[in-house]
Amino acid sequence: MSAVSPLAPASFPELPPVAGVQLATFEAGLRYQNRADLMLALVDDATTVAGVFTTSLCPSAPVDWSRSILQRGTARAIVCNSGNANAFTGKAGATSAELTAKTIAAAFDIEPTSVHLASTGVIGETLPDDRLVGGLENLANQLAPATAAGWEAAANAIRTTDTFAKGASATVDLDGTAITVVGIAKGSGMIAPDMATMLGFVFTDAAVAPNVLQTMLSGAATASYNRITVDSDTSTSDSVWLFATGASGAAPITSVDDQRYGPLAEAVSAVNLDLAHQIVRDGEGATKFVEITVSGAEHDEAASAIALSIANSPLVKTALAAEDANWGRIVMAVGKAGQRANRDALKIWIGDELVADQGVQVRGYSEDRATEHLKNDEVKISVDVGIADGTATVWTCDLTHGYIEINAGYRS
Amino acid sequence: MSAVSPLAPASFPELPPVAGVQLATFEAGLRYQNRADLMLALVDDATTVAGVFTTSLCPSAPVDWSRSILQRGTARAIVCNSGNANAFTGKAGATSAELTAKTIAAAFDIEPTSVHLASTGVIGETLPDDRLVGGLENLANQLAPATAAGWEAAANAIRTTDTFAKGASATVDLDGTAITVVGIAKGSGMIAPDMATMLGFVFTDAAVAPNVLQTMLSGAATASYNRITVDSDTSTSDSVWLFATGASGAAPITSVDDQRYGPLAEAVSAVNLDLAHQIVRDGEGATKFVEITVSGAEHDEAASAIALSIANSPLVKTALAAEDANWGRIVMAVGKAGQRANRDALKIWIGDELVADQGVQVRGYSEDRATEHLKNDEVKISVDVGIADGTATVWTCDLTHGYIEINAGYRS
Repeated sequence: MSAVSPLAPASFPELPPVAGVQLATFEAGLRYQNRADLMLALVDDATTVAGVFTTSLCPSAPVDWSRSILQRGTARAIVCNSGNANAFTGKAGATSAELTAKTIAAAFDIEPTSVHLASTGVIGETLPDDRLVGGLENLANQLAPATAAGWEAAANAIRTTDTFAKGASATVDLDGTAITVVGIAKGSGMIAPDMATMLGFVFTDAAVAPNVLQTMLSGAATASYNRITVDSDTSTSDSVWLFATGASGAAPITSVDDQRYGPLAEAVSAVNLDLAHQIVRDGEGATKFVEITVSGAEHDEAASAIALSIANSPLVKTALAAEDANWGRIVMAVGKAGQRANRDALKIWIGDELVADQGVQVRGYSEDRATEHLKNDEVKISVDVGIADGTATVWTCDLTHGYIEINAGYRS
Repeated sequence: MSAVSPLAPASFPELPPVAGVQLATFEAGLRYQNRADLMLALVDDATTVAGVFTTSLCPSAPVDWSRSILQRGTARAIVCNSGNANAFTGKAGATSAELTAKTIAAAFDIEPTSVHLASTGVIGETLPDDRLVGGLENLANQLAPATAAGWEAAANAIRTTDTFAKGASATVDLDGTAITVVGIAKGSGMIAPDMATMLGFVFTDAAVAPNVLQTMLSGAATASYNRITVDSDTSTSDSVWLFATGASGAAPITSVDDQRYGPLAEAVSAVNLDLAHQIVRDGEGATKFVEITVSGAEHDEAASAIALSIANSPLVKTALAAEDANWGRIVMAVGKAGQRANRDALKIWIGDELVADQGVQVRGYSEDRATEHLKNDEVKISVDVGIADGTATVWTCDLTHGYIEINAGYRS
């Protein structure tokens, strides 16, 4: 087990219960020993669901399954196993996924198509169905309303090579009803030896119509998980769900024009952004949490493409690891992004220090001050490309020997 | 100075003269000490020229200059300095570029617009114009017809952090006339501390009309420099030129339908591919030369995109460094390429070992044999994505601690 990331939060947060959500974990021994590797969240009958899944064209069997049942709009359960991604496992993989849904459905007398699935771990190995079914059946005995300890156990059960468990919460008052949003996630930037996947499970006791919930989650995912990068790789299993139990008793939100939509969407976005930042903080080998803001782009998507080009550049990331105010590499990354940029109007800041302006290094620019900023655990780079008003912020980490250490290690 | 790459050729090749080409090098002390940092090739009056330049939207001043004079179709000189890329240097950079062309033009009584320019080295620092002009004026005294020693000196003068000088040649008989093609190049994958640039200078004594020469070079570049990758980064200065002096006395090739076009294009492609492979072999920290072939794609460009997705994946590259037959990461890279792939028909070979077929690991697949193949200095990965007939081959290297070592070092 790797040491805990130096960028990890001091402790797992105290997460509140969410009405209508029960949790269970179990040690099925699918791959790991002496730890839980199954997690179940059972949600109340009226729960609506939204999901965002990997854009990979080679998705895992549980992604295929969950995507196929999403149109139902309601759900009763999400079950996740760690240690095996059930990806690139052919018909056997599809069979294991279906078996998982049916076993949970039988245990709780619900429809198999109301059971969402997530798997994370090794690619290309079939799940041991006997142990899996045994474990799933045992989950029923462990079920309890979500408590702080329950959330933490659930966040731990879904870890693969994460060096810390990830959770976040928010509360919001909607017309006098206190609404809770809680999320747990796993992902250490991207992948450790064979461990594919970023997974997020977010729950609220608000009542939201499925199509509205999907809009809310899609927006939150775009502004969080789609704005982080560790090594530019994309897994076959990335998935995030948002479940709305309605157990708060608040009236349903059935339109994005409902005046309560905005505040709830903001809370959901805050939880997802917090989880996304934690994933970056667990980036393999990361020693710096890096925020990159691009302004002046042709439009927001162009700004995002430029920011991600900087964030994904191995040369920028190694310079950050070295605390080297090497702005030439930032120019290079802007130039290769394929988006409009005015070279002769380009501005670059490292922290608050304006390094380059109007196509040249700023007179009186202090490399010392820029370097001082880069010695922090949390660093900021800003770029204005001088075209129009598009802006975007993305988050990444530096690229260190630790990344190579983790990823060039032979699979254990 | 880094140790010579373990993947370097045993020695610099014995390059033949090219009729109509004279070379000079000089130690101007622009940045480096005790080595030549200026290279000039002066070519005969009738020489035609073709060029392919970086797609970066923040190109260097010499790229701007050379691109602007390319339409002339003929050229008399190419001059290159190492140690300073003259990129992101604003008006001062443009002035230095023009000054360089004018100084060479005055020295040899030729037109400034017949002088092509290349610069490689630090970004964002202005060139010391006095030392530059002094050095350029001294080049005239050094000029001599291209010999084997002259080529090697020229290949050395354009190095930045290259661990070895790069050259290649080919000869071809065109209707009884022996034609020579010689190229030199620099680039160590992509960039070392601040040293941007892949540069290639290729010369032939064939006579070729400018538009035909451009077609020839563009085709060669697509199949060579555009098929290699070390870290997915793109410099502000990448450029390659092809000069055809016509000094062999062979009749000009004025159409791609000329039956001599094919054999000459093949020789030019062979030289460029050889140079491109040498650049990969000098990849920063590289310990493996990796060939990746994708077949069964929707079309050749799709195959190339998938192959580059695999070649650029840090997770694939670290697995190769570890000699780990981790085909799950190859599936991941295929999936994220954004090109059509049939997950359930995907085939993956490591060396000659069929690892995965029809969506699952092959029964009887020997990880030992795959691992044995990966212990070689030169390794092959093949993928068939099961859609149509598109194919492409790309070349890359592995990602090791050496890459971090080189790129996270503070600028000296």
